[in-house]
Amino acid sequence: MPSSAILLIHCPDRRGIVAGISGLLYAHGANILHADEDQDNDLGLFFMRIEWDLEGFALDDTAFRREFQPLAASFDMRWKLAYSAVRPAVAIFVSRAQHCLLDLLYRHEIGELACDTPLIAGNHVDAQALAGSYGIPFHHIPVDAGNTAEAEARQIELLERHAVDLIVLARYMQVLSPEFVARYPQRIVNVHHSFLPAFSGARPYHAAYQRGVKLIGATSHFVTEALDDGPIIEQDVVRISHRDQVHDLVQKGRDLERVVLSRAVRWYLEHRILHYAGKTVVFD
Amino acid sequence: MPSSAILLIHCPDRRGIVAGISGLLYAHGANILHADEDQDNDLGLFFMRIEWDLEGFALDDTAFRREFQPLAASFDMRWKLAYSAVRPAVAIFVSRAQHCLLDLLYRHEIGELACDTPLIAGNHVDAQALAGSYGIPFHHIPVDAGNTAEAEARQIELLERHAVDLIVLARYMQVLSPEFVARYPQRIVNVHHSFLPAFSGARPYHAAYQRGVKLIGATSHFVTEALDDGPIIEQDVVRISHRDQVHDLVQKGRDLERVVLSRAVRWYLEHRILHYAGKTVVFD
Amino acid sequence: MPSSAILLIHCPDRRGIVAGISGLLYAHGANILHADEDQDNDLGLFFMRIEWDLEGFALDDTAFRREFQPLAASFDMRWKLAYSAVRPAVAIFVSRAQHCLLDLLYRHEIGELACDTPLIAGNHVDAQALAGSYGIPFHHIPVDAGNTAEAEARQIELLERHAVDLIVLARYMQVLSPEFVARYPQRIVNVHHSFLPAFSGARPYHAAYQRGVKLIGATSHFVTEALDDGPIIEQDVVRISHRDQVHDLVQKGRDLERVVLSRAVRWYLEHRILHYAGKTVVFD
Amino acid sequence: MPSSAILLIHCPDRRGIVAGISGLLYAHGANILHADEDQDNDLGLFFMRIEWDLEGFALDDTAFRREFQPLAASFDMRWKLAYSAVRPAVAIFVSRAQHCLLDLLYRHEIGELACDTPLIAGNHVDAQALAGSYGIPFHHIPVDAGNTAEAEARQIELLERHAVDLIVLARYMQVLSPEFVARYPQRIVNVHHSFLPAFSGARPYHAAYQRGVKLIGATSHFVTEALDDGPIIEQDVVRISHRDQVHDLVQKGRDLERVVLSRAVRWYLEHRILHYAGKTVVFD
Repeated sequence: MPSSAILLIHCPDRRGIVAGISGLLYAHGANILHADEDQDNDLGLFFMRIEWDLEGFALDDTAFRREFQPLAASFDMRWKLAYSAVRPAVAIFVSRAQHCLLDLLYRHEIGELACDTPLIAGNHVDAQALAGSYGIPFHHIPVDAGNTAEAEARQIELLERHAVDLIVLARYMQVLSPEFVARYPQRIVNVHHSFLPAFSGARPYHAAYQRGVKLIGATSHFVTEALDDGPIIEQDVVRISHRDQVHDLVQKGRDLERVVLSRAVRWYLEHRILHYAGKTVVFD
Repeated sequence: MPSSAILLIHCPDRRGIVAGISGLLYAHGANILHADEDQDNDLGLFFMRIEWDLEGFALDDTAFRREFQPLAASFDMRWKLAYSAVRPAVAIFVSRAQHCLLDLLYRHEIGELACDTPLIAGNHVDAQALAGSYGIPFHHIPVDAGNTAEAEARQIELLERHAVDLIVLARYMQVLSPEFVARYPQRIVNVHHSFLPAFSGARPYHAAYQRGVKLIGATSHFVTEALDDGPIIEQDVVRISHRDQVHDLVQKGRDLERVVLSRAVRWYLEHRILHYAGKTVVFD
Repeated sequence: MPSSAILLIHCPDRRGIVAGISGLLYAHGANILHADEDQDNDLGLFFMRIEWDLEGFALDDTAFRREFQPLAASFDMRWKLAYSAVRPAVAIFVSRAQHCLLDLLYRHEIGELACDTPLIAGNHVDAQALAGSYGIPFHHIPVDAGNTAEAEARQIELLERHAVDLIVLARYMQVLSPEFVARYPQRIVNVHHSFLPAFSGARPYHAAYQRGVKLIGATSHFVTEALDDGPIIEQDVVRISHRDQVHDLVQKGRDLERVVLSRAVRWYLEHRILHYAGKTVVFD
Repeated sequence: MPSSAILLIHCPDRRGIVAGISGLLYAHGANILHADEDQDNDLGLFFMRIEWDLEGFALDDTAFRREFQPLAASFDMRWKLAYSAVRPAVAIFVSRAQHCLLDLLYRHEIGELACDTPLIAGNHVDAQALAGSYGIPFHHIPVDAGNTAEAEARQIELLERHAVDLIVLARYMQVLSPEFVARYPQRIVNVHHSFLPAFSGARPYHAAYQRGVKLIGATSHFVTEALDDGPIIEQDVVRISHRDQVHDLVQKGRDLERVVLSRAVRWYLEHRILHYAGKTVVFD
């Protein structure tokens, strides 16, 4: 895989955006690997993800930002620049269930997830052994009604110390405070065990069973202040039948949850997710 | 296909149900073609669908009912007996969109749906030509805020005259009155263009687009008094992306709607659907 | 929908392709609606589909071709230019089964397929009534072992007379001669009722049943000289169980076939399919 | 979960089978939990899986077999009796890739797979650490062209010593000898990384990429003498696009392989798989 740069952009739709960017890149020797441009017609927005090979590209990060800034300003762009060689730091929060955590750790180990994993934090100790077997420091931070602020202070201290870019809630069954969430906008990814917006909140498999749906789902999303209401990144479903009791839904759901969450994490790490208007564009 | 009888049963779970039924059938020469027995552990309920070949079976309908009644009473069964050779009468209600109607008519024509179709009723005239091309009487019954009772009276008159068993709402965009619904319990099937319980009510594709879901769905269900809240019969979904605008969702959704509705109708006609506790068992 | 131009390109991968094209477009006032660029790393190929609004674009077809030609030549491009306002002419070939034909005709009627449909040709008369109900001329051209050349001559005469762009084999159960196929390269689309390359050739549902597969599929593909071996455009599958006999596979398969074929036709008409090295790129 | 007995039966279809079995069970106090009866019309075969609660059932294993034998003989049944409380012994064979092994071990740990796992055998040492972290003895048995017989002798010695019921090939990249296979009929489950019968043999992802299919698959099956030709137990597929290179297929395929293999193992352990005529019935 070549070392590459990725630019994510959205801005009001106007003539000349692609020409401006590709012209700038070409002038400095970029070889474009992938590019994808689309629109939201209703909102008059333009989206772009462009990735180019750094081999032979003349500009370093500082120089590129200096050159690109006037163009970005002229089109009123919101943009994010990233490099495939820079591995984001990911923290994983977990409670008792470990299927999502294990899935992430194994994918990380075999190279599917290009990140560092400096820390795992659990409000229970159950995942400590698993974290240890993958050589990742585990921090036991119990949370109860009385100590939320203190627990979050400890979490934040860890996140800051390790310069964490992304927080993954791998079936972390605690609600984060608005202050915590506000501190990490579009940087906390959760998996909810239903096909949102159906069955938000607690015990979604029980609710799905009661309602008699014929498919169950899982949803990965950015965490915002409103519970289970953040921008959706990925969803998937699996068929159930009348033979499936609640514990069968839980079992089938585990397979969905880990796949849906790991895709979201991978896409985040590959800089494929663009966030706007309460939803996401995922460039594939 | 042999001419067969189908028995659908549910009752409190107890020893001896299968032995009782299969013993009775065997004593009169039945050859069982398919049988499926399951339970709802939470509610302590037993479900059964059993189908047997009528070739060589000694009991006619009256005799079977007389023989079976004591057994059914002793197990406190709710049961329904049907015959594959008896074609139910199906009425289709439609508004402007015709994709579901066309799908049903074509499936009927080629033998996928073993029913008679004595009437199509539309609150608009759009479907008249299509009904005509398949040789089915079309009744234009306009509905507006002021004439609901009168329109339903006309509909009921038609349904009674043709001894209709099942009413299929093939994207019929009107809400039926509680009185109408109560008259046909578990005999009205609707298709809603979302993955219920998400996006019930009006304009579900717009709502799905706004929320930014990654899959859209369709749901066929029995109609009950509460809007979009009846027992679900079938659901399916299709993946969408940021490239799909609302009209793309509408287009992709049409393919879901017709498949999900036609499956529900076919299963109804094959006596595969058992209704209890606000949900369905679909014997496959 | 705006009136737009679409350019499909593939060429050896080199620096400056995107900049060259987008610069040219911008210089003449194009507003890019969608663009997608990718690579085949193994073969060192670059692919692009770019669509721009013709509103405000300064070049007509002749002028654009004149301007673009030198650029295309310098990058050794293979390219195709199309306009959303130009409706391709599509001929449909059919035998007895009509589910794919009906599906195409209905989609055409409601605007999903932006084409003209000057003719339907059948080697049986079964589809004549259906063609008539949609107002499309039907030509009965019987085919048997002795008259293939003559039948194809009649077909070619019709295709030429109506300047047909695309021939859709909607479950047309005849093998076309190599000469016929060579005359319409990448312009004949077929649907095969299996998940190719499994079960190519005759009676794929029977073969699938014998083998005991757990999913059945359908495949739409360009027709080439080698039977069922042309570039695949789309595939889909559906789950089957031991309860499904061959006629159930046939029934479930019909739903796959029509969806898989109609997607291929729509993508062709939207100029989303690029063909190279025996396979396709489908820009979504 | 109650302690239950499961009976799997197939025999020529005749009247009285269900009545005979359910009558016998009822006479001894069985409460039927699930039952499913079906037919293969072409072959005139009857299939049944019946599961009953052992609570209150009067017959122990010996007594039941004695009572049931005459009935079975009179219907020419092939049958298998199992108990949910008896945990089969499963051996896992592995090479270098560990995603399937890890998946099985985790599912076993959390109770999804009701078996004992006395041994893991690898022709490479890569999986030794993983086996150790789950506390399962690992045996390194190198295999090369010259020592196949010797290696299989060591494997067989281990399998016999641990009274292994099922051998799971969790991406074990060696071909077993006909003698080995014949020793364990319908007791070796493999996962092949394609949608069989397409792309049997070596390097299926490369072959799929070359052919340009739009979905890739994985297949779990019983191992027979003919390579990749045994009765299929489960299959699943995932969509790919032109953006996916071979390594992307490998990555997406891993998620399929583990799910498809673990379902086969679970169904085997739950006595849901019936084998006949080169294919399987999976009772769900």
